[in-house]
Amino acid sequence: MFQNILEEIYQEVKPLILNGQQADYIPELAKTDPLKFAISLTSTDGKHYDVGHTDEKFSLQSIAKVFAFTLAYKIKGDAVFKHVGVEPSGDPFNSLIQLEQEDGFPRNPLINAGALAVCDILISELKNPEKELLQFIQKLAGHPDINYNHKVYESEKATGYKNRALIHLMKSFDRIQNDTGPVLDLYFKLCSVEMTTRELSQTFLLYANHGQLPLSGEQILTKSQTKRTNAIMQTCGFYDEAGEFSFRVGLPGKSGVGGGIAALHPGRYAVAVWSPPLNSKGNSVKGMKALELLTTKLGWSIF
Amino acid sequence: MFQNILEEIYQEVKPLILNGQQADYIPELAKTDPLKFAISLTSTDGKHYDVGHTDEKFSLQSIAKVFAFTLAYKIKGDAVFKHVGVEPSGDPFNSLIQLEQEDGFPRNPLINAGALAVCDILISELKNPEKELLQFIQKLAGHPDINYNHKVYESEKATGYKNRALIHLMKSFDRIQNDTGPVLDLYFKLCSVEMTTRELSQTFLLYANHGQLPLSGEQILTKSQTKRTNAIMQTCGFYDEAGEFSFRVGLPGKSGVGGGIAALHPGRYAVAVWSPPLNSKGNSVKGMKALELLTTKLGWSIF
Amino acid sequence: MFQNILEEIYQEVKPLILNGQQADYIPELAKTDPLKFAISLTSTDGKHYDVGHTDEKFSLQSIAKVFAFTLAYKIKGDAVFKHVGVEPSGDPFNSLIQLEQEDGFPRNPLINAGALAVCDILISELKNPEKELLQFIQKLAGHPDINYNHKVYESEKATGYKNRALIHLMKSFDRIQNDTGPVLDLYFKLCSVEMTTRELSQTFLLYANHGQLPLSGEQILTKSQTKRTNAIMQTCGFYDEAGEFSFRVGLPGKSGVGGGIAALHPGRYAVAVWSPPLNSKGNSVKGMKALELLTTKLGWSIF
Amino acid sequence: MFQNILEEIYQEVKPLILNGQQADYIPELAKTDPLKFAISLTSTDGKHYDVGHTDEKFSLQSIAKVFAFTLAYKIKGDAVFKHVGVEPSGDPFNSLIQLEQEDGFPRNPLINAGALAVCDILISELKNPEKELLQFIQKLAGHPDINYNHKVYESEKATGYKNRALIHLMKSFDRIQNDTGPVLDLYFKLCSVEMTTRELSQTFLLYANHGQLPLSGEQILTKSQTKRTNAIMQTCGFYDEAGEFSFRVGLPGKSGVGGGIAALHPGRYAVAVWSPPLNSKGNSVKGMKALELLTTKLGWSIF
Repeated sequence: MFQNILEEIYQEVKPLILNGQQADYIPELAKTDPLKFAISLTSTDGKHYDVGHTDEKFSLQSIAKVFAFTLAYKIKGDAVFKHVGVEPSGDPFNSLIQLEQEDGFPRNPLINAGALAVCDILISELKNPEKELLQFIQKLAGHPDINYNHKVYESEKATGYKNRALIHLMKSFDRIQNDTGPVLDLYFKLCSVEMTTRELSQTFLLYANHGQLPLSGEQILTKSQTKRTNAIMQTCGFYDEAGEFSFRVGLPGKSGVGGGIAALHPGRYAVAVWSPPLNSKGNSVKGMKALELLTTKLGWSIF
Repeated sequence: MFQNILEEIYQEVKPLILNGQQADYIPELAKTDPLKFAISLTSTDGKHYDVGHTDEKFSLQSIAKVFAFTLAYKIKGDAVFKHVGVEPSGDPFNSLIQLEQEDGFPRNPLINAGALAVCDILISELKNPEKELLQFIQKLAGHPDINYNHKVYESEKATGYKNRALIHLMKSFDRIQNDTGPVLDLYFKLCSVEMTTRELSQTFLLYANHGQLPLSGEQILTKSQTKRTNAIMQTCGFYDEAGEFSFRVGLPGKSGVGGGIAALHPGRYAVAVWSPPLNSKGNSVKGMKALELLTTKLGWSIF
Repeated sequence: MFQNILEEIYQEVKPLILNGQQADYIPELAKTDPLKFAISLTSTDGKHYDVGHTDEKFSLQSIAKVFAFTLAYKIKGDAVFKHVGVEPSGDPFNSLIQLEQEDGFPRNPLINAGALAVCDILISELKNPEKELLQFIQKLAGHPDINYNHKVYESEKATGYKNRALIHLMKSFDRIQNDTGPVLDLYFKLCSVEMTTRELSQTFLLYANHGQLPLSGEQILTKSQTKRTNAIMQTCGFYDEAGEFSFRVGLPGKSGVGGGIAALHPGRYAVAVWSPPLNSKGNSVKGMKALELLTTKLGWSIF
Repeated sequence: MFQNILEEIYQEVKPLILNGQQADYIPELAKTDPLKFAISLTSTDGKHYDVGHTDEKFSLQSIAKVFAFTLAYKIKGDAVFKHVGVEPSGDPFNSLIQLEQEDGFPRNPLINAGALAVCDILISELKNPEKELLQFIQKLAGHPDINYNHKVYESEKATGYKNRALIHLMKSFDRIQNDTGPVLDLYFKLCSVEMTTRELSQTFLLYANHGQLPLSGEQILTKSQTKRTNAIMQTCGFYDEAGEFSFRVGLPGKSGVGGGIAALHPGRYAVAVWSPPLNSKGNSVKGMKALELLTTKLGWSIF
């Protein structure tokens, strides 16, 4: 069933000429082929369904924020919410306005400011944050070859002035414990993680599987923590288009400016799509459309 | 099972001395007994479970916005979204700042500005808006004696300056088709609708039941429209605490400053709680706690 | 000297094809001939200098706010500053954002919100506010035929939704003592006052003459109150272009969307210009240019 | 006359117990004796009048922004206004909100963002910016021993996170040409410049003297540039209290969180006061009061 539906969606969405544009503020991302398109779905019974360029790595960008948050939540428990909130921002993903008005406390862990606060936690808690964060993501993915992309990392580091503004604003409100340099560095590394859609849907299965790794059975987050992480993705996962995604797709998920979107139906499946052109809100145009068709054709949403 | 759980919750939450305060900007609401507390649950198989003051009417306030939106959505279909959006606001429920920055287009139908836009639609579309809106709510509730409360209506009309500011701001952006007076009047009427928790959980069963009235079988909204309405409640139903509710409770729902909260688990049940003292965000303190315990004890959430 | 300079300026500025546009949000103002252009200067020794269409009446609009404030200041003394501040707004003249953030307290008496607060004072203090305000302006002008323009008043009343939003927002913060209807009415009347540039420069002579009426010798404001009124004009008289006017012209003054600007050099002269096309900030394009040339050619500014 | 008036003011203001607090966000400034109080006035005929601790150096902080702007204006002429505006900000001196809303273009050269843009210009234009800026200030002061205070510089550098946020935000909008490190460094140096009130009033005489150095006769700014610089001080020199200062004092000037205020009456005199406790807007409480009394007692203001 899943395979047929994915193929239908692929045929319907692929030819669409949509008004998207690739992210160009990170020069390295602007080079990606805009015609790449892939969908992978992994069901909780462990089966994979793929269509399109599902073996090509792309830059996870903000999707990777979910993994950093997962690690910080696992380590700190509810104390993580002393550092980040759980409310949608209503503003673009990297706005300083709200952050200044709210004394430097980031609305949620999936906007840039919140992910910087999460990286600050990881630096405080881990011996070798860069290595341990990567190993954690590799474990979630079940693929030891997941890695940072050095060129993308360098590209973001060379241009990430708004993120520098965000972290210094938080630091001015005493919200960052460590030096800003290493925190930014870990953040840029995190955003540069690469996966294929197949690897990404496998990694997101954790969240559809009540916090348990499907292969090893290891409980990464408790059932309750997993629900809460999914709730945060539902309300905060799509910049200032979270309502639109919830409205049209009806699943918790997270998008990135690399053109990827990962989403999940609790207890049923995880899904990853990739198509680089973005709408004005920073979300993959074809990705949004493909996921809307998926829940429509399946007739399932969490609502 | 439901009955036992409701009684457990009632016993646990009732004695809590919480820092809430009743709404006082609507003088008539300030008179309610702060110790009133009621929980009613209606399952999709039509059974009722009640505990506490479940036979006393209270003022629905913003909860009633869901019914006005439902009627407008039923009449206009997707065209309703030319008048209101589906994004969470991130700001307090009656903020003018966001509305001014976004050219008078309300973020969603569950904030004041959006509900005013919905009332404007109803006035354009109905012959006798006040009467037909009430009849619609009576039909959803299956109770012909549901009514507006005249004292509350008068009280809101005498003090609702911020709502007057909102509608004139929208009017200045050409977002309101009718004279502002009748639109405000219908809005104040809408907010004054009264129900018991038992009636409210019965009324919300519609949204747990895929848009079909449980008794008559009449399809009020399509299945897809119902999902979308639930998605809007999930992301926008709790002022600037939508994320917190989603995080702690994990159900679509809507709160009102009368101290009521209605929520639902698609396919399973609708639930209504009432306790007047509110937290700083305008949501019932005991109501939030009771619903958190409900999904915890049931072990079910949509995530 | 003055006459020659005015004629030079007139010849220089008249042929300029500038990118201005007339105010169109008040339909009656949109009908004015865009080629009208007039400059009048009155020196403190009582002499008049005119060039252009100086005998044609135009709509004072916001310039008249200075006169309403003068009357309120005369009646209430420093107590007037419990109702309005003296700070520049930094935002467009009719923004609600700042007003909401600052609890409905208007930044200064020369923005719309502040002038509404001033009209509220006049209604509290005067028996027949509409008549007494007009008589006061007639006295300042020394012309008993100065009047409200009924068509402009009706035009503003029919379209002034943003002003209705402002006053209801202030009312929601308890900043308005009277019913909003009469306050708005007086405000719309005030904005509709008409004068020629000759009458306007005569009227503004008061502020160049230390608060004393040049003809009768009556002291309208004390010397100190006059200085303070001039200081408010200097920092707040040109919407969010007060700095630009101060920078280029260097005189206290006030502009209106009818295309008029009045300004003054303390102890020396008052000047009025009129040319309907406005820049994007709402100030007369040719008026700004003419006054810049005036202070340049005279070699005098207050700085 | 001046000497008697200064002594009267000193006696009146000194005993006042005012609700001010010293700046504590720069640790080194928090150490100053709060009872220090000094007033110096220099008339355009070159005479000095002093009362109080007029021989003690204090930290100029934001007052020094005027000198950096003067140098940049001298070098670049009107092209300086491609980098900074001339409008009052209406917001606190270091707000990021306005800067983000206006695409990183600073409102004026006297707020932090604008002074950072000015330092960026100086780094582009000068061979040895740190040394040449200091030499320029020494020349204006006519005192070769004016210097940066190393401890204050280090203290600001160690804590200036908000300034780092500002410059990175501007850099993200391509408003800063140089690396952020050296620009911040020059900015922190600039703020650390120390003078006595006697030296400061001597330095400000330039602005009362039409841009000409009183001793050497060297024309630093043109007459027109000087007027414009004074106009900027008038509308932008006191953070979000510029209107209040203009209203109560009626002179162009500039304050600093070190407790100093410098002001001037064009053609007549320059004046400097110093008293460390600040009001909630960041301006010296006794300094504001002393200058209000000065213009009241002299009976002169520019209005």
